[in-house]
Amino acid sequence: MTKILRDDDLVGSELMGVAINALDAAFLARAQDQMISPPRHHVSFSNRGDLVFTVGGMLGEKPLAGFRVYETFDGVEHSQIVAVWSVEDAKLKGIVLGERLGNIRTGAIGGVAIRYLSSPDAKIVGILGSGAQARTQLAAATTVRQITSARVYSRDEKNRTTFAQEMERELGIEVRPVGSVLDAARDADIVICATTSSTPIIHASDLKLGVHVNTVGPKTQRGYELGLDIADVADVIATDSPEQTRAYASPFFLAGSGNEHRMADLADIIAKREIGRRSSQDTTLFCSVGLAGTEVVVASAIIDLL
Amino acid sequence: MTKILRDDDLVGSELMGVAINALDAAFLARAQDQMISPPRHHVSFSNRGDLVFTVGGMLGEKPLAGFRVYETFDGVEHSQIVAVWSVEDAKLKGIVLGERLGNIRTGAIGGVAIRYLSSPDAKIVGILGSGAQARTQLAAATTVRQITSARVYSRDEKNRTTFAQEMERELGIEVRPVGSVLDAARDADIVICATTSSTPIIHASDLKLGVHVNTVGPKTQRGYELGLDIADVADVIATDSPEQTRAYASPFFLAGSGNEHRMADLADIIAKREIGRRSSQDTTLFCSVGLAGTEVVVASAIIDLL
Repeated sequence: MTKILRDDDLVGSELMGVAINALDAAFLARAQDQMISPPRHHVSFSNRGDLVFTVGGMLGEKPLAGFRVYETFDGVEHSQIVAVWSVEDAKLKGIVLGERLGNIRTGAIGGVAIRYLSSPDAKIVGILGSGAQARTQLAAATTVRQITSARVYSRDEKNRTTFAQEMERELGIEVRPVGSVLDAARDADIVICATTSSTPIIHASDLKLGVHVNTVGPKTQRGYELGLDIADVADVIATDSPEQTRAYASPFFLAGSGNEHRMADLADIIAKREIGRRSSQDTTLFCSVGLAGTEVVVASAIIDLL
Repeated sequence: MTKILRDDDLVGSELMGVAINALDAAFLARAQDQMISPPRHHVSFSNRGDLVFTVGGMLGEKPLAGFRVYETFDGVEHSQIVAVWSVEDAKLKGIVLGERLGNIRTGAIGGVAIRYLSSPDAKIVGILGSGAQARTQLAAATTVRQITSARVYSRDEKNRTTFAQEMERELGIEVRPVGSVLDAARDADIVICATTSSTPIIHASDLKLGVHVNTVGPKTQRGYELGLDIADVADVIATDSPEQTRAYASPFFLAGSGNEHRMADLADIIAKREIGRRSSQDTTLFCSVGLAGTEVVVASAIIDLL
């Protein structure tokens, strides 16, 4: 019987590690042209909204196929569907409903980037933002690095305090709410920018030498959360999908900055076809765009686990 | 919580009537351009097969959106997914898994055609084929007409006997297995052709004056189950989707026959924009192709019922 998982089923500290390892293998498959991730497919329902499909999967030894679908209708409750087939026997492995899988997947992409780009002895994380994405990014960082403490800044004092208390309990590390971007970033070996801000809230001068930065929030010329000077100082700039950065309706925030052409595919860094961090002095920047097909890979790994 | 239905849940004699009435309303909406049914969307997974999406829905008072997806991978077990959203509040109404919904939907399309095209006092049904499609077509015919008896022909004697026994019990009418196409069709007011034959097995001379014929099986120039002379003698030829008949990889079986241009859209007959049956002497032919979007409409009605 096809397994159906919902948000409440996606619990347990081992989920993030499983998701990161599954994506690590998927990025390697991508570098070998074994990942399927065609452009999104939109169907409009008059002026009421769209259904949006990201279809994708992996070839190779145990090929997977599947899709994610979400809608853009007006409503308070939204539900995504992710479904996964095992290509070898045409079996529908399972369906995952809700919002949580998407957050785990974005967190896990960030985790893979941190695994390959941050300094191996990174200990301190600075987080900007206190939403669901900030939570899974921090959980991902602690999964791939020996993180001892984190500092969180978010405009709303209550939100950052709640975030700190809850994440401290969840992850078993010190998490301290701080009153400014600089206080969060200054000593951090890893900076996670996971806000909804459409104006830059962090700049190169806020960062420590040798830092790795993940930007998860807005990244188009209509709005972006990260100062362009961070790209200027970065020794390595990578993304999970160069194609998708070129397909945005509003151009990617680095377009025309002079830095967009040296943006590497994270998959190529993992496959050692591109050079990543060379020393503990390097500054690295990862622009997370959500490679199509990764939902299917993460869903498959979680269905196998649960 | 999103309702999940599987094949075993789709039972009960009221299902077919609910499906037919839902499609009747949907065809009327289609005649008013209120039905969304864009072309199918295929994604290939190398040479292993495709995922195929039919997205669609209905606008109007209670707008619906959704999709069906199936795969063409090698395997013994195949599972379709149909999902339905209520557009007004973005709520995922439910998901239907398995093969049965597709059969009910094709049966119900046939039922709508029989409701609008067959003689109102049709009593005898002749069925060619004894598979799942033959079963739901017969159930649909008994839902919209006062059918008293049916004759079934299928090459395999055991299959037609089993079909007769099971359908007699299920529908409470006489169902008799017969030894030839002619024996099944000769006295029938309604003939249902639901075989997998790629060479014509029934011809105009097998039919009674005033008959209505549904062809559910192969209908392309690569293979078709119905003699072309049946289209020649038909006073009315209709289909649930003229667009889809023109989009087949191999041309539609009537292409070049001189009859393809007088093929009406069933929706237009229901909306009285095209003329249907005019007398009990008319021969009518319905070519069932499976209008995209109808799975969503039927799934929605069944989710509401169960």
